[in-house]
Amino acid sequence: MTSACVPAGAITDIAGIAVGHFSDPRRPTGCTVVLARDGAVAAVDARGAAPGTRETALLDPSNTVERIHAVVLAGGSAFGLAAADGAVQWLEEHGIGLDMGIATIPIVPAAVLFDLPGAADRAHARIRPDAAAGYAACAAASAAAPQEGNVGAGCGAIVGKLFGAGLAMKGGIGGASVTVGGVTVGAIVACNALGDVVDPDSGRILAGARSDDGLRLRDTRRTLLAGAPPRPLLPGANTTIGVIATDARLTKAQAQRLATAGHDGLARAVNPVHTTGDGDVLFALSTGAVAPGEDGAPGPMVLGVMAAEAVARATVRAVRAAQSLRVGGLWLPAAADFHP
Amino acid sequence: MTSACVPAGAITDIAGIAVGHFSDPRRPTGCTVVLARDGAVAAVDARGAAPGTRETALLDPSNTVERIHAVVLAGGSAFGLAAADGAVQWLEEHGIGLDMGIATIPIVPAAVLFDLPGAADRAHARIRPDAAAGYAACAAASAAAPQEGNVGAGCGAIVGKLFGAGLAMKGGIGGASVTVGGVTVGAIVACNALGDVVDPDSGRILAGARSDDGLRLRDTRRTLLAGAPPRPLLPGANTTIGVIATDARLTKAQAQRLATAGHDGLARAVNPVHTTGDGDVLFALSTGAVAPGEDGAPGPMVLGVMAAEAVARATVRAVRAAQSLRVGGLWLPAAADFHP
Repeated sequence: MTSACVPAGAITDIAGIAVGHFSDPRRPTGCTVVLARDGAVAAVDARGAAPGTRETALLDPSNTVERIHAVVLAGGSAFGLAAADGAVQWLEEHGIGLDMGIATIPIVPAAVLFDLPGAADRAHARIRPDAAAGYAACAAASAAAPQEGNVGAGCGAIVGKLFGAGLAMKGGIGGASVTVGGVTVGAIVACNALGDVVDPDSGRILAGARSDDGLRLRDTRRTLLAGAPPRPLLPGANTTIGVIATDARLTKAQAQRLATAGHDGLARAVNPVHTTGDGDVLFALSTGAVAPGEDGAPGPMVLGVMAAEAVARATVRAVRAAQSLRVGGLWLPAAADFHP
Repeated sequence: MTSACVPAGAITDIAGIAVGHFSDPRRPTGCTVVLARDGAVAAVDARGAAPGTRETALLDPSNTVERIHAVVLAGGSAFGLAAADGAVQWLEEHGIGLDMGIATIPIVPAAVLFDLPGAADRAHARIRPDAAAGYAACAAASAAAPQEGNVGAGCGAIVGKLFGAGLAMKGGIGGASVTVGGVTVGAIVACNALGDVVDPDSGRILAGARSDDGLRLRDTRRTLLAGAPPRPLLPGANTTIGVIATDARLTKAQAQRLATAGHDGLARAVNPVHTTGDGDVLFALSTGAVAPGEDGAPGPMVLGVMAAEAVARATVRAVRAAQSLRVGGLWLPAAADFHP
């Protein structure tokens, strides 16, 4: 069901959701904004051991704020969190946010991935998504199906890094949606995983660590289980981040469960995943009016199945849509070069 | 790597770990005890939405108690937690526990699964693992590779229940271990999942919901995504529970990460998993002396890969080793009947 002939859909299939990318022209980095102009009930599940995030504490179901107005996914590691400042500014200028009388306060959670290996040197690595990048991504946002591959937060994404960046492959950003009983769950995923990306329907590896000659996929899991030592890990030098959205009407706690289910999709499409070197984070947004189980709409269990599926498919698309990249001394082929 | 020709290993490959089953002769229910006579550093990750557990609060890495002495996996839903009382009694009689001077206190976390559909009627359903069952499982414990299939906590386990118990198949209990760099990670898993059990290496469904004529596997995920409504769910009427153990020396926080990684193995071998109707819980135990990364031992990242693999393989074995069962009006074929 992940084959290319199935229309993938996109997170923008959800009414009220718009997506904008900013791709830095100077080096492979960028950011992606998922806008919910009318607000969205939201939650997060951070499952990787090295996350970089902003505004996740307020998403706890027991905390007060119910709705967020955008989510920023950015490269640049911890520096990239600054992109959210630009999204906040853009939203304020457009009068979007939590009305506190004296001010309208945009609520913008964010998560980042580490795309600094895609920099030729330390000076180059100082180029990373900033407030202007986040602002530009908001200004570019539309309800059209977002571009996939080497754009936005996917610009500098790399997968399969356990045996060195020189044997890795190009990651990217991808999207998918599934509709059941009139309700849609969509996802957008920027995949910069330490591990390999796998087609869950066949077990076939699509992109990941390559053999020493660079010509075939190594199979990270089997290589590790056979006793090959991985390269020493830098914490957070990897990470898959994404947003799930649905037009079902969810509580924060129900949205939390959707984010949790999404990580099962990541576990199926990425191996290894949620490692000590990954900061895997998924947000879940609800914009809709129909409650789970109401009027024939799917209940929470089926919504979870849909979220896992949308995330797995979006992750597969992230590497299928990626294009090979040369940066500095690094040559990063894409899945399409191995499985045309 | 999950094929039958690969030796599966067992959690008892970890020095200091013994396993005992109690299988009730009166109806398909029972319990399984994982004993760590010298204590084991332990952690838990409860990812299903409807867990039934005991002594999980103390396992939080910030809490005081470091070591546990046994884990009980039991059928009988919440009633089955009583089996842990029998394990506590057996351990006290053998002088095993946390020495508090005035008493030696055995620390016995437990998790339960709902195997009451395997009862012919309400009176039959009153038969469930009790303190005597937990005591008997301890008395039966040995360091030999445990039996798999319809034994212990696997006696009444059923998988693929989303379209009714009449179209489900027999679940069970299974084990596996993987060794890398002189360190072993083993798992024992009792699989009573709402969803189907999948071979992650091929995507093939091994056991799960059957078609209306009962003759083929329905593919729960694809059926739900195609819009078929599931049967109304009873919370907690399912659940996969298990224990991971390693002879690596881990802190509680590192053990927590192992339990987390184990759930990625569950996500690959069960679909859907961690649903609103499952109480999926995994414990992780560390008995060993060699720290991660020391003397060529695998680091925390590779240990996570090993934990995910051991759990996935143990789950596959749980249904491959299961035998078909008739109870009351219910006929539950096993994976072996479909894939001899």
